[in-house]
Amino acid sequence: MYKIKIILPVATDRYNESVYKEIKGFSLDPRFEFEVESLSHGPISIECEYDCAIASPHIINVAEQAETDGFHGVVVYCFDDPAVKACKEKLEIPVVGAGEAGVHYSTLLGKKFSVLMTIKNAITVTREMVENTVGPGHLASIRVVDIPVAKLDSSADKLFEALLASAKDAICQDHAEALVLGCTGMLGMAEKLQEEISSDIGAFIPVISPGATALHLVQSLVLLNYRHSGLTFMTPPDKIRK
Amino acid sequence: MYKIKIILPVATDRYNESVYKEIKGFSLDPRFEFEVESLSHGPISIECEYDCAIASPHIINVAEQAETDGFHGVVVYCFDDPAVKACKEKLEIPVVGAGEAGVHYSTLLGKKFSVLMTIKNAITVTREMVENTVGPGHLASIRVVDIPVAKLDSSADKLFEALLASAKDAICQDHAEALVLGCTGMLGMAEKLQEEISSDIGAFIPVISPGATALHLVQSLVLLNYRHSGLTFMTPPDKIRK
Amino acid sequence: MYKIKIILPVATDRYNESVYKEIKGFSLDPRFEFEVESLSHGPISIECEYDCAIASPHIINVAEQAETDGFHGVVVYCFDDPAVKACKEKLEIPVVGAGEAGVHYSTLLGKKFSVLMTIKNAITVTREMVENTVGPGHLASIRVVDIPVAKLDSSADKLFEALLASAKDAICQDHAEALVLGCTGMLGMAEKLQEEISSDIGAFIPVISPGATALHLVQSLVLLNYRHSGLTFMTPPDKIRK
Amino acid sequence: MYKIKIILPVATDRYNESVYKEIKGFSLDPRFEFEVESLSHGPISIECEYDCAIASPHIINVAEQAETDGFHGVVVYCFDDPAVKACKEKLEIPVVGAGEAGVHYSTLLGKKFSVLMTIKNAITVTREMVENTVGPGHLASIRVVDIPVAKLDSSADKLFEALLASAKDAICQDHAEALVLGCTGMLGMAEKLQEEISSDIGAFIPVISPGATALHLVQSLVLLNYRHSGLTFMTPPDKIRK
Amino acid sequence: MYKIKIILPVATDRYNESVYKEIKGFSLDPRFEFEVESLSHGPISIECEYDCAIASPHIINVAEQAETDGFHGVVVYCFDDPAVKACKEKLEIPVVGAGEAGVHYSTLLGKKFSVLMTIKNAITVTREMVENTVGPGHLASIRVVDIPVAKLDSSADKLFEALLASAKDAICQDHAEALVLGCTGMLGMAEKLQEEISSDIGAFIPVISPGATALHLVQSLVLLNYRHSGLTFMTPPDKIRK
Amino acid sequence: MYKIKIILPVATDRYNESVYKEIKGFSLDPRFEFEVESLSHGPISIECEYDCAIASPHIINVAEQAETDGFHGVVVYCFDDPAVKACKEKLEIPVVGAGEAGVHYSTLLGKKFSVLMTIKNAITVTREMVENTVGPGHLASIRVVDIPVAKLDSSADKLFEALLASAKDAICQDHAEALVLGCTGMLGMAEKLQEEISSDIGAFIPVISPGATALHLVQSLVLLNYRHSGLTFMTPPDKIRK
Repeated sequence: MYKIKIILPVATDRYNESVYKEIKGFSLDPRFEFEVESLSHGPISIECEYDCAIASPHIINVAEQAETDGFHGVVVYCFDDPAVKACKEKLEIPVVGAGEAGVHYSTLLGKKFSVLMTIKNAITVTREMVENTVGPGHLASIRVVDIPVAKLDSSADKLFEALLASAKDAICQDHAEALVLGCTGMLGMAEKLQEEISSDIGAFIPVISPGATALHLVQSLVLLNYRHSGLTFMTPPDKIRK
Repeated sequence: MYKIKIILPVATDRYNESVYKEIKGFSLDPRFEFEVESLSHGPISIECEYDCAIASPHIINVAEQAETDGFHGVVVYCFDDPAVKACKEKLEIPVVGAGEAGVHYSTLLGKKFSVLMTIKNAITVTREMVENTVGPGHLASIRVVDIPVAKLDSSADKLFEALLASAKDAICQDHAEALVLGCTGMLGMAEKLQEEISSDIGAFIPVISPGATALHLVQSLVLLNYRHSGLTFMTPPDKIRK
Repeated sequence: MYKIKIILPVATDRYNESVYKEIKGFSLDPRFEFEVESLSHGPISIECEYDCAIASPHIINVAEQAETDGFHGVVVYCFDDPAVKACKEKLEIPVVGAGEAGVHYSTLLGKKFSVLMTIKNAITVTREMVENTVGPGHLASIRVVDIPVAKLDSSADKLFEALLASAKDAICQDHAEALVLGCTGMLGMAEKLQEEISSDIGAFIPVISPGATALHLVQSLVLLNYRHSGLTFMTPPDKIRK
Repeated sequence: MYKIKIILPVATDRYNESVYKEIKGFSLDPRFEFEVESLSHGPISIECEYDCAIASPHIINVAEQAETDGFHGVVVYCFDDPAVKACKEKLEIPVVGAGEAGVHYSTLLGKKFSVLMTIKNAITVTREMVENTVGPGHLASIRVVDIPVAKLDSSADKLFEALLASAKDAICQDHAEALVLGCTGMLGMAEKLQEEISSDIGAFIPVISPGATALHLVQSLVLLNYRHSGLTFMTPPDKIRK
Repeated sequence: MYKIKIILPVATDRYNESVYKEIKGFSLDPRFEFEVESLSHGPISIECEYDCAIASPHIINVAEQAETDGFHGVVVYCFDDPAVKACKEKLEIPVVGAGEAGVHYSTLLGKKFSVLMTIKNAITVTREMVENTVGPGHLASIRVVDIPVAKLDSSADKLFEALLASAKDAICQDHAEALVLGCTGMLGMAEKLQEEISSDIGAFIPVISPGATALHLVQSLVLLNYRHSGLTFMTPPDKIRK
Repeated sequence: MYKIKIILPVATDRYNESVYKEIKGFSLDPRFEFEVESLSHGPISIECEYDCAIASPHIINVAEQAETDGFHGVVVYCFDDPAVKACKEKLEIPVVGAGEAGVHYSTLLGKKFSVLMTIKNAITVTREMVENTVGPGHLASIRVVDIPVAKLDSSADKLFEALLASAKDAICQDHAEALVLGCTGMLGMAEKLQEEISSDIGAFIPVISPGATALHLVQSLVLLNYRHSGLTFMTPPDKIRK
């Protein structure tokens, strides 16, 4: 049995159970088990570079402990990929960020895609992450629903309406051909949105759940004995870090 | 039980069994079964644009028949991705090319990667495929082992030596940080090469088997109910095609 | 006397005569003669990747025969450039696609250009062709008139109105500075549209006919003793192709 | 009869006759006649941005006079394209620079090409011209033969040897697949080099003469009633220019 | 005391005094003194490639004289950077163009910026200058206020209104995050516009004055003993330039 | 009197004095005073993404305190720009990273530049920083001297030799035209290296000290009343960050 650690990079365990429930719907491989863990310290949500920076050391702590505890892979369950590169440098098990996973699946399924984001603050970090991952040629736009992370779970209907409206604008105005949710906290939205927007547009529009793709990717890395390159992500040199 | 059709785009069934044996080592999901099929007509190997063009209609035939026969997904098992876009237009089940799959995994695992290719003739088609998939920023080089496809299975030792030499040159001279095999017919090479080159270099170097990644990707698409965008790959209009 | 084969990649000879008549207006070099040939098999029009793939082997057949018959150059007379790369690999006489020709002239004459396309299905193949030819920096937009190829010749007035409207949108909304017709079957349109749109906008707007530019380009290649590089387009290796 | 003005942007008429003789070998269209004119003032050769800047007003003068005199097109006969954009703004007849022409033909004939340049000083201006014309994806390298323009005509043998050596390096070390001469003053070299390098390499390597391609391009523009876009190259506003 | 020559590349001394007054507000370093000089010949304003070409030799003359006269640095005070590269080749003191300076500051302060330009004619030269300086990834748009340079100083109120409207459009429609004035002759506008647009938008929007940034940059180059690379900008070879 | 906080992002005050001494040689503006502060916690040097991530919250703390204390600007004195974006989001005074400053000056002074780096581990973070700052078109190479940060101050002679050797390789093999030190801890090297390498090569080669350029840039931002855009770097939303 392979074990995957899912790190929620937020200093609250309020989402742990609902995320665990969500991933049960991802048709994961029966040879794997998953454990969700949030942070003891840091921001209660990730919505900008400032949050990423503050959460990073705590994400690294959880990731390092997971490797020590014998986990076979780690997923940083946030679209902004906080501390993902640092974890890849330090760990010798596969580490996947939900952002990079979502971006790779989006590019595979559509030539141009849009990100449906929570609030404007995350646009800068997202744009850079996307362009560093697959170049500038695939991002049609980043559209925001203007609902902060902390309100996502109490606003399911409003969120769905806003996602649907943003999805239409992304397709009709920005020429997006696929969509990816810009936050792993938009629980229960991807499949429903995929169905509705595909029906509205009259063509199949994939709506990528970044968390789902990260979990499937990390499974395949473990099973195929792959992980990130030790030349791209060299082991940090020994030194005092106090 | 989900069924995946693996299309070998070559007009010989000489490789069917060995490919089927090879994929048994890919730790695939137990909920899936796989069927390997080659072409009745076309070139006996794919090594250039000319081969791709001649094989394409026959690949499409097999892919269309697979959809009719109730398969849940199709993999075109060749690094040059012949007819993959045409199949995506026509089919409403997931279609994955081994080339695009290998390129996405390589980019995920290393910032710069090299393709280890059979012969020079495939360089032009490969370069374009890589750049169209993830932009020009990730391709360190394409290096050839100078062994044609038809000789791959009878030259295992020579092939491995040539791959190892090319891998070293790619890393040391072209600054590659990850490697991907440029042909799905280099059976039994990826894992062994990954081990040896990592040991030689003193850092983990992922060596991607494009076929393995395509199969894992198509599985995840089926399980997550994703497929290519109907806006990027619109259904071909009805017309006489004689 | 030099002889050029113009391949209409459609399985109907319905357009042969009108295309031949059209090229009479291109002020071609008196030292050349031209022969128009369509396909015996394949789709009756080219409007997507699927059509390209199915037509390709038949295009190659005509092209190879043309070389055998002593023609001095070949033009694939379609904006999507089906099988053009394959033909370049196989032939040792100049081969020019109408798409690449139109794109080079457009880039030469305007910094940003738009393609005026028949129907949406061709957008993906066109976008990639343009970006592979001159990079992503020149394409302002692809706009469609929503008239399929098969209706082009019976809808001259409607087609012209639609082209004019698309041309204005391309210039005013997408900041195009030059235009290229996205189909070689829009007979008799380019010059008239160039006149009208230039007059409307109050500045000279070149409207490129891709077929006309391909014919002038192939003439110059023949006269200057140039053809495609044998390193970019290597001769396909001998093998069984059944 | 159409008339083309060939502007040699150098303040000496020493090359006029030899250039005129050279173009006789370009198999130009019998419906055209050509007139070669050099500058009354300016540098005696163009080898850097400084030379371009000093020659520019004098090039413009000759070009404006050519339009007044009823010429149908203008070619600025220098690979660095000095004043070409300024002339396009001012003139309403086609203007073609030998540099842009050579770059378009090179890109058409090979995916990657190298420029064979006179001396190092021209590298900066050339690199920018190439990248502005067809993007950064096609330039393999710029190699210099280290012979200044003024010595080109008295060093034919040395020049050929140096070109051949540079050509080999460009192909073998920089992976060039086509070549373009970086100076219109390398008279009588292109065809001979094409023959020799193709034979040496064992594959056809096009060696583009930028002047030849500019003349063929300008002919086709005149015959097809095309010229540069009035939106990219807007007419300069009236004002005092003393 | 260090001395900087500010070259106004216009054949009128009508702006010398007002520019000198303007730079007094730039908080320049007390160790420097500045001298403004315009051209004896050339166009009375720079608004297109044609103007740049005609002004260039006269700019070079002033720049060369400044070096001879013992100035420590030169600023070409125009957003289109006319003759800047030629001056860098010839001079061994720092040369800075107001355009490149403005573009570097804009990129530093905002990920995407728009240029607020005088009239449409300058768009082509500006677009190329920006992309050559920091790549294509930063330019959100170029918007024009449609007031020619010669009318700028007599239209202060109208200019400010037009800049403010363009600024809002650039931010709201083109997603600009920073702004740069596209002309050094928009005296007294930058600071006021920065204040007003920031207040309107509700976020700090830097409005870069290209002249101000060029002067600060050239000061730092002088103080740190830096100047442009002699390999990028090689000394022009000796030759007759009459 | 303006006050600038220089943050050394290392958990040791061992370098504070030598850095302060170094900046005395930067000919800074007499209207400014500077204060150097290192971190109480974090790694003792920054050499990879892992170090950046761990140091980031502590850098932010110092930066926020500096703003509270009335400083007018902040420089993060490290070439890898750790926490620079997070600080820009949070602070309303100018924040400049030594990395982005060095890259802008390098691009201004040379078309292609190389980074002379300490150890290999920093290559990935550096490459991404450079490409995000000025696009991929300017980076010739990153070369390492293979001396860790902690040994830099005790290895002055060895460091200089290694820098000189790397500089020559960067210029001769990678075609660099300017150089930038990849670490702000290479004290006393830039000017000396600039002199020696320029003399060796026979052309002026700027060798950028990133710290020096950051200090001059931040001065100009303060004096001109500029800072980063509030749209690129939006104020982090209020939330619990424990």
